[in-house]
Amino acid sequence: MAEAVRLGSAARGTTAPNPNVGCLIVGADGAILGEGATAPGGRPHAESIALAIAGERAAGATLYTTLEPCNHQSRRGPTCTDLILASGVTTVVAAIEDPDERTAGEGLARLRSFGIDVRVGIGEAESRDSMAGWLTRRRLGRPRVTLKLALSIDGKIALPSGESKWITGEDARAHVHLERAHCDMILVGRGTLAADRPRLDVRLPGLEERSPRRALLSRGEPVDGWEMLRSPQDIFGLHDVNDLLVEGGSSTATAFLAEDLVDRILLYRAPIIIGEGRQSVGYIGLDAIGDAHGRWEPRDGRQLGIDRLEVYERVRSPTR
Amino acid sequence: MAEAVRLGSAARGTTAPNPNVGCLIVGADGAILGEGATAPGGRPHAESIALAIAGERAAGATLYTTLEPCNHQSRRGPTCTDLILASGVTTVVAAIEDPDERTAGEGLARLRSFGIDVRVGIGEAESRDSMAGWLTRRRLGRPRVTLKLALSIDGKIALPSGESKWITGEDARAHVHLERAHCDMILVGRGTLAADRPRLDVRLPGLEERSPRRALLSRGEPVDGWEMLRSPQDIFGLHDVNDLLVEGGSSTATAFLAEDLVDRILLYRAPIIIGEGRQSVGYIGLDAIGDAHGRWEPRDGRQLGIDRLEVYERVRSPTR
Ligand SMILES: NC(=O)c1ccc[n+]([C@@H]2O[C@H](COP(=O)([O-])OP(=O)(O)OC[C@H]3O[C@@H](n4cnc5c(N)ncnc54)[C@H](OP(=O)(O)O)[C@@H]3O)[C@@H](O)[C@H]2O)c1
Ligand SMILES: NC(=O)c1ccc[n+]([C@@H]2O[C@H](COP(=O)([O-])OP(=O)(O)OC[C@H]3O[C@@H](n4cnc5c(N)ncnc54)[C@H](OP(=O)(O)O)[C@@H]3O)[C@@H](O)[C@H]2O)c1
Ligand SMILES: [Zn+2]
Ligand SMILES: [Zn+2]
Repeated sequence: MAEAVRLGSAARGTTAPNPNVGCLIVGADGAILGEGATAPGGRPHAESIALAIAGERAAGATLYTTLEPCNHQSRRGPTCTDLILASGVTTVVAAIEDPDERTAGEGLARLRSFGIDVRVGIGEAESRDSMAGWLTRRRLGRPRVTLKLALSIDGKIALPSGESKWITGEDARAHVHLERAHCDMILVGRGTLAADRPRLDVRLPGLEERSPRRALLSRGEPVDGWEMLRSPQDIFGLHDVNDLLVEGGSSTATAFLAEDLVDRILLYRAPIIIGEGRQSVGYIGLDAIGDAHGRWEPRDGRQLGIDRLEVYERVRSPTR
Repeated sequence: MAEAVRLGSAARGTTAPNPNVGCLIVGADGAILGEGATAPGGRPHAESIALAIAGERAAGATLYTTLEPCNHQSRRGPTCTDLILASGVTTVVAAIEDPDERTAGEGLARLRSFGIDVRVGIGEAESRDSMAGWLTRRRLGRPRVTLKLALSIDGKIALPSGESKWITGEDARAHVHLERAHCDMILVGRGTLAADRPRLDVRLPGLEERSPRRALLSRGEPVDGWEMLRSPQDIFGLHDVNDLLVEGGSSTATAFLAEDLVDRILLYRAPIIIGEGRQSVGYIGLDAIGDAHGRWEPRDGRQLGIDRLEVYERVRSPTR
């Protein structure tokens, strides 16, 4: 399953509106017979790709998938449930059920009714992480929003003049480019566009083609090459975006935080003190420190060259 | 030597103006025959305590000490070099030489001249860390200054109203109390005294007696129970302080940073976002981000309950 998660994770940012599923088919002797991830744009599905590679060797094999195989009829081809039944696979291991309440478990129940050995829940946490964007969209009706901040020790994003090049070093910037490659869309505020003219592309060998769509937060005139969002609430209209990366600046970060529309923070912390400078976040509606607690959970922390990456996730209940 | 360092470190904050030396005497069979650390106030010395415990069993033993034994004549008793020569110890292992250029190596040379096997440099880095306060005073003529900051993710120390209770949790606060126990003096600005009336004592079982002297940074009237510093530069007059802990607030932190009088930062980072609030550090004379780089080195990072401690040390060259 770890390998299926890896396959699915590599496709993050390319499969919207569909989930980035990973699938692996393993023979009785342990040989890998086929593998797949949801294709760019969302089709073909991971299972259908893996089954096509395995061909007749799938008979008697085990299929690992990070998400319950689809069972909705579609004009665009047979369901993965049907493909699995036709393939001769005898065991299906799915990390999580389809979160859609109308269909959850139906695909797996159908496989079981045809005598296939079905197991659910293995690698669940990793698969949820891997498909967090799509799952957020299913649960909250909007993309998962990741806020990127590059801060000094004392929490500044720029000098009073606006100078912010460079707070963080090469390794941190390379990591940002990797995160970009795994998002469907990147957003900045008009202030950042005006100040920095950011390209927001992916400058990593082999991933240049993965530069996501660019969006601008502004109540003003449209700008060529940028999709316009007039308010943070407009993300509820982004039906083909699983993962949205908000790259700045301060007003934009504040607007998303104030409306509680941030699910994850990527904090790149440089070992410098700026002192007087632009703050990272303004008024977000907080009136007592007690109310600030219990909202963010540290998830990952790691050194990136001289900088440090800290990842925080919004605690929301119920989580499913 | 690790054990000698441990003994010396436990005495940090109590031995000024003397160094917090640790000493261990080990017999030929590996048995520990005596141990000691510089006594409160600086005397007796660690070696003299350990030798007194070992007594006649010291004959033929090895003495480990974190600092070269003293060789200056004093009216307050014999030098440790003389005590060692009288004890019958046959091997002396010292982590570092006395940094005082006038006497460096003299104690060890004298021991060698009497046929004692002398080794230097084992456990040097750990011993330097352990006696960093005293070593800073020898090198720069002032205490080592540690700045404590308790910040939110976005680098704020309080709400706009000044409310700062509680940004960090119990474990972080307990760690602050431990750091207090290992400083000779704690300093706050008058703003913090007025706002918080801080007790600055050590509230840890068994360490209550270790509450350090309290100092106030202010150009105003003296306050009972507080030693007055009229400017950060006044620390050059603190001859009996090895380690000074600066606990806030923002103007005070800024003043020490602006005069480059901070050697170490203890950053307690809470997983909360405050947004609009009081900033941790103001103008410190920085006019370009490039100039901020290369000054601070991350030294330690660790989780304290839900908070995270980050330790930074000022990079100064030459370091010795
Ligand atoms: N260190 C870092 O991580 C980082 C990252 C990016 C940027 N920066 C720096 O941040 C600075 C720019 O920050 P900034 O705060 O001035 O600008 P910004 O957030 O990039 O853009 C502000 C603009 O975004 C739009 N906007 C903000 N909130 C909105 C809302 N609720 N609804 C609709 N539109 C909204 C408005 O555009 P309209 O006025 O057009 O309506 C507003 O003027 C620059 O100095 C840049 O270099 C730092
Ligand atoms: N989160 C934390 O880590 C933390 C820690 C401590 C405090 N705080 C918060 O910080 C706030 C207080 O900060 P603050 O900046 O207002 O006050 P502050 O730094 O505690 O005190 C300011 C005062 O210190 C003196 N001072 C500052 N720089 C000086 C200099 N260069 N020379 C001589 N005296 C100097 C002046 O006193 P005179 O006017 O008397 O001359 C000045 O008014 C409070 O809200 C407190 O709760 C937070
Ligand atoms: Zn399918
Ligand atoms: Zn001595």
